[in-house]
Amino acid sequence: MTSATPLFGRVCLLGVGLIGGSLAINLREKSLAREIVGVARRQETREQIKKLGLADTVTGDAAEAVRGSDLIIFSTPVGSYAALGEAISGAFKKGAIVTDVGSVKNAVIRDLGPFVPEGVHFVPGHPIAGTEHSGPAAAFGELFEDRYCILTPPPGTDDAAVKKVQALWEACGSTVQIMDAAHHDKVLGITSHLPHLIAYTIVATAQDLEEATRQEVIRYSASGFRDFTRIAASDPIMWRDIFLNNREAVLEILQRFTEDLTALQRAIRWGEGDVLETLFTRTREIRRGVVELGQAGTFDTRERKTPEESED
Amino acid sequence: MTSATPLFGRVCLLGVGLIGGSLAINLREKSLAREIVGVARRQETREQIKKLGLADTVTGDAAEAVRGSDLIIFSTPVGSYAALGEAISGAFKKGAIVTDVGSVKNAVIRDLGPFVPEGVHFVPGHPIAGTEHSGPAAAFGELFEDRYCILTPPPGTDDAAVKKVQALWEACGSTVQIMDAAHHDKVLGITSHLPHLIAYTIVATAQDLEEATRQEVIRYSASGFRDFTRIAASDPIMWRDIFLNNREAVLEILQRFTEDLTALQRAIRWGEGDVLETLFTRTREIRRGVVELGQAGTFDTRERKTPEESED
Repeated sequence: MTSATPLFGRVCLLGVGLIGGSLAINLREKSLAREIVGVARRQETREQIKKLGLADTVTGDAAEAVRGSDLIIFSTPVGSYAALGEAISGAFKKGAIVTDVGSVKNAVIRDLGPFVPEGVHFVPGHPIAGTEHSGPAAAFGELFEDRYCILTPPPGTDDAAVKKVQALWEACGSTVQIMDAAHHDKVLGITSHLPHLIAYTIVATAQDLEEATRQEVIRYSASGFRDFTRIAASDPIMWRDIFLNNREAVLEILQRFTEDLTALQRAIRWGEGDVLETLFTRTREIRRGVVELGQAGTFDTRERKTPEESED
Repeated sequence: MTSATPLFGRVCLLGVGLIGGSLAINLREKSLAREIVGVARRQETREQIKKLGLADTVTGDAAEAVRGSDLIIFSTPVGSYAALGEAISGAFKKGAIVTDVGSVKNAVIRDLGPFVPEGVHFVPGHPIAGTEHSGPAAAFGELFEDRYCILTPPPGTDDAAVKKVQALWEACGSTVQIMDAAHHDKVLGITSHLPHLIAYTIVATAQDLEEATRQEVIRYSASGFRDFTRIAASDPIMWRDIFLNNREAVLEILQRFTEDLTALQRAIRWGEGDVLETLFTRTREIRRGVVELGQAGTFDTRERKTPEESED
């Protein structure tokens, strides 16, 4: 605890789960807020937030919580923003800053922007961090360390407000990048939305197999399938909303992916070994880039692939 | 080191990379072999094997190495089996056991079977273990601990020979499962071959983007894409051979996958949120199965998904 004036006075967390809760821990431990108000729709969740001590006060009344808050952070599924924004539009304090942690940004500006009144600052954000777990109990303070956080302030957004939101994420240990919302949605459509769509699909395909085979698929999942099951265990509501709200970008990249998959399918059908080898060789480059950038994470590197190795 | 009689006398490793080398370490540390002969095609690799002390003798002459060996282990890419089998077919010692670690089993029996003479026992195998790294330097003794190893002995295979190969893998810490080769190829086509095919494709799709976007894809890979890059960094030759040698099973499951992906694509296009939510919810079951079976591995569970969580 430092005695310096905190970055924010009253901070309102709309949604206190993995991300909202982890932000709360940072706000407290780093003395970034004078007061934290948590909002959760369900009584059960509110009890949990209290028990975990993630907020000074917890309520189900979003407007009440927003009233008098200097920073309002949306961390609920993006599909809920419009209704939530409408419910609190009259409660904003003049000069307050509204931000969010949603995985899509164009739709967030479209849905929330109209409810942010003149004199209130809107700085949409997206921390590239998370785990396959969700809910308040999954929150932890180090979640944002050494991660990127993308901010997509609409043109004309007050620069001081952007700087304050940036300072919040930097205090959490993240590197902040500012970009256009449409560009964010395109890039994340590739790095996050398409991979999740593919993972959900392949796990669903396996699930439709007869019971006996399905059990074996689970038993031998270490041979590659396992990573997909982890991604496909992500929050269903959150992901439903992401795909519904980044439709164009996802469908466009999915089209490219399907074309590439069809070409590979053809190469296998026709036994074109050279085509396969060439493609499998060049895909190693991107992995090198990921590792060099220090974004490879730390893993149990065992059983990452099936066993033989080339006698090179 | 125990003074008991080793399980095998002279063991010939055809290919001493990640798997062959890790087997060598186990053969030595657990005194499972009296003598280990390593075979590598390239001089550079042979020097490396000697330097790492993975074999008592190292040679480029496969037939020479097989002569007098009690156990011969193929751990080269499956595409090399036929030529290698033909080269050594005259060198087998009577009563010797031939096994392998290949990711496909029907093709291995098809290619290698004809070169295994009467009186020599053929026990095809596949340890479900590996990492994204390859080569002798990547070998380590614990690779097979708590992993599954599948054996697919053709009908009529000598039971004592199967038991000895099983004992080898159990000594390495693996659980052995016996199944039909065609069934193995179907199950692994789903758990391993399709996931790798998908991962290679999605990484290739990202790679074809303009340079600027590609750099951002790498930067923000932690949001899901990263796991695919690791899988897509697997050995190109090995994987070329797998797809060429498990064509039917891979194309069949790929067809199912494509149908499911098309249905999901349509649901996104038409904004069918309920369809998405239902599918994303049921895919969680398989993950639970993987975790319960203790095959989930140990990970840095951070940034496993993009951030918001449902306000449940």
